[in-house]
Amino acid sequence: MKQINFDHLASSPILPEVREAMIPFLSEHIGNPLSRHFLGEKPAKALEEAREQVARLIGATAEEIIFTSCGSESNNLAIKGIVHAYAKKGRHIISSPIDHHSIIHPLKSLEKQGFEISWLKVDSKGNIEPNEISSLIRKDTILITITSASNEIGTLEPIKEIGRIARERGVIFHTDAVACAGFIEIDVKELNVDLLSMAGNVFYGPLGTGALYIKKGVRILPLIEGGIQEKGLRAGTHNIAGLVGMGMAAKIAKEKLSERRDYLIHLRDFLIDGILNNISDSFLTGERNYRLPYHSSFCIKFIEGESILLHLSFAGIAGTSGSTCSSEALKVSHVLEAIGIDPFLAQGSLTFTLGIDNTREDVDLLLKELPRAVDKLRALSPFSHSTRVA
Amino acid sequence: MKQINFDHLASSPILPEVREAMIPFLSEHIGNPLSRHFLGEKPAKALEEAREQVARLIGATAEEIIFTSCGSESNNLAIKGIVHAYAKKGRHIISSPIDHHSIIHPLKSLEKQGFEISWLKVDSKGNIEPNEISSLIRKDTILITITSASNEIGTLEPIKEIGRIARERGVIFHTDAVACAGFIEIDVKELNVDLLSMAGNVFYGPLGTGALYIKKGVRILPLIEGGIQEKGLRAGTHNIAGLVGMGMAAKIAKEKLSERRDYLIHLRDFLIDGILNNISDSFLTGERNYRLPYHSSFCIKFIEGESILLHLSFAGIAGTSGSTCSSEALKVSHVLEAIGIDPFLAQGSLTFTLGIDNTREDVDLLLKELPRAVDKLRALSPFSHSTRVA
Repeated sequence: MKQINFDHLASSPILPEVREAMIPFLSEHIGNPLSRHFLGEKPAKALEEAREQVARLIGATAEEIIFTSCGSESNNLAIKGIVHAYAKKGRHIISSPIDHHSIIHPLKSLEKQGFEISWLKVDSKGNIEPNEISSLIRKDTILITITSASNEIGTLEPIKEIGRIARERGVIFHTDAVACAGFIEIDVKELNVDLLSMAGNVFYGPLGTGALYIKKGVRILPLIEGGIQEKGLRAGTHNIAGLVGMGMAAKIAKEKLSERRDYLIHLRDFLIDGILNNISDSFLTGERNYRLPYHSSFCIKFIEGESILLHLSFAGIAGTSGSTCSSEALKVSHVLEAIGIDPFLAQGSLTFTLGIDNTREDVDLLLKELPRAVDKLRALSPFSHSTRVA
Repeated sequence: MKQINFDHLASSPILPEVREAMIPFLSEHIGNPLSRHFLGEKPAKALEEAREQVARLIGATAEEIIFTSCGSESNNLAIKGIVHAYAKKGRHIISSPIDHHSIIHPLKSLEKQGFEISWLKVDSKGNIEPNEISSLIRKDTILITITSASNEIGTLEPIKEIGRIARERGVIFHTDAVACAGFIEIDVKELNVDLLSMAGNVFYGPLGTGALYIKKGVRILPLIEGGIQEKGLRAGTHNIAGLVGMGMAAKIAKEKLSERRDYLIHLRDFLIDGILNNISDSFLTGERNYRLPYHSSFCIKFIEGESILLHLSFAGIAGTSGSTCSSEALKVSHVLEAIGIDPFLAQGSLTFTLGIDNTREDVDLLLKELPRAVDKLRALSPFSHSTRVA
């Protein structure tokens, strides 16, 4: 049976070119980029080329890129590194309740340490209102951190407007662009972003690679202290093969950005229409148009998302309900809660994230199997007929 | 020209079996171990197998292993995670001045936050006296962290005795075993160690992989917060290929431990004798016998280590002076300083770390080239003849 991946945010295929770029650093080019002898030469050169490639993807310079081991590490480094570097200036932070757990959990820890967090309101589509940020900025505000797009509902946030406000008011602005980078044009200078988190695996690089853009001049303290790697801002031996792979993936992502985006948007819209038109009591979560090109997410009434996914799994289709990073937690998604979705309804949440390896036929199969699974489950549910609206 | 690696602590070859175990997770088995659908199955199984393999290497159980991205991250997690979890009990820590920078730098940061560090004395061979630890333990001591062996001088520390004292006095004991694991028999239960850091690349796994053993029942706070990976103690998407590689490397390291150890000790002793017998004014740093099987380190009078390494590099031989993690810092090694070596003399430090890929012929070449390089440099030095002792 063909396996169809509609859960690309959890894991995407690694491009053949990426794998080819990596293999030499798992075999003949064994070396540490910090070594000053010949064994270090190729890895050092490759690492700096990767840094250049990642920088170009977001309009940064290579010296503004710090490599990490994943998007979550980038987010933790950004938040903890900034607030501890600027704690003397103030202890107030502004963030959103639909940010990823790797933002929210560090912020909750900082709250216990005496930092104060203002959580923004979000509307039912997951939109943040830049003016609210403006009204929340205080003299002791040291950081604004807002996701570029939630991995659960896909809504693109007004990063440029937030950046303008932050810059005008002199507050450091970080955005978690893990779900965006490689699919949305990003120019950190134009967006007035001071820090931006990325993960290589999202744009078809290897799992376990990440980067943090830090605008030149912004002070930050390291999370992992020790050696002089990454200008002392991230100690530890480099995952050289992985980072070379991330660089290659960034290069290709930049070249193919609009082509991929157009392809994915087309497929996404076909999928969204297909589900909304063919499944009663289904609705989209997040914005319809102003959303990640590859992202579709739904709530379907009177079913449990996990049961649907099990049915789809038998048909060779992979999707998710909520975020994979919290998939074992079995709590209602904090993002769906924040946009005001009834907890009972949130149990019926489904997210399908598309990739360039998906085809129209893949979507057709989903549109055949999903309504079947929904009907079957609703028929089994003791309350479905009595409560079914349509 | 043949390239000879005598700098294995900076980078070791990846075993073919390790690479073979990794490749499927860079190609066909793309998946996130946290995914609850079929794409997650193979990665999840492989990750847990790797955890089992790493656990077995040190006599731990799989549930006591937390995967990280490198030894430095393991060290940072151990130290910061423990002291913040136990800060209410006290703020006193005992450590050694010959520990790695990924121990010392976090401790210096904690010092600024109000923690108190007692730095042990070390003798001229790098030995720590367990009784001194005993006398330093106070009611508010929350952590003892001592390297198992310094990567710069190779002396094996009395971990078992320290463990016994720590357990008797009820203080948590962490050891940085990055340089040891895979080459020295380690049984964490027997050693009474509560936390132990490892890195996969040291025992012929891939760069950018690490693990921290945390004894069951020891509380610790995460460094990277976010998702539920690693029981919530280390958020972030797994570097699945790398960790599978680390697991395979650990499995083989356990199987071949004594064979490798015997081979390396034989080669090491031949190398040490060769240098001490053939180069005047050279002496070994660290213990002669009670040292890492693959480790040799020297100070050679009236030369500069960096210049020697350059000469050796032209002959295809890679070595290092001090630690690679601080190789660009151009400071005198803190380890050599701690064992009382004159800063002027410490400039002539050389470290050669052997690997199973090294042969007797490799050592012969070093023993031919090194004296030549030393003679050449001493002849060029304006002060060498007047100050030369022998």
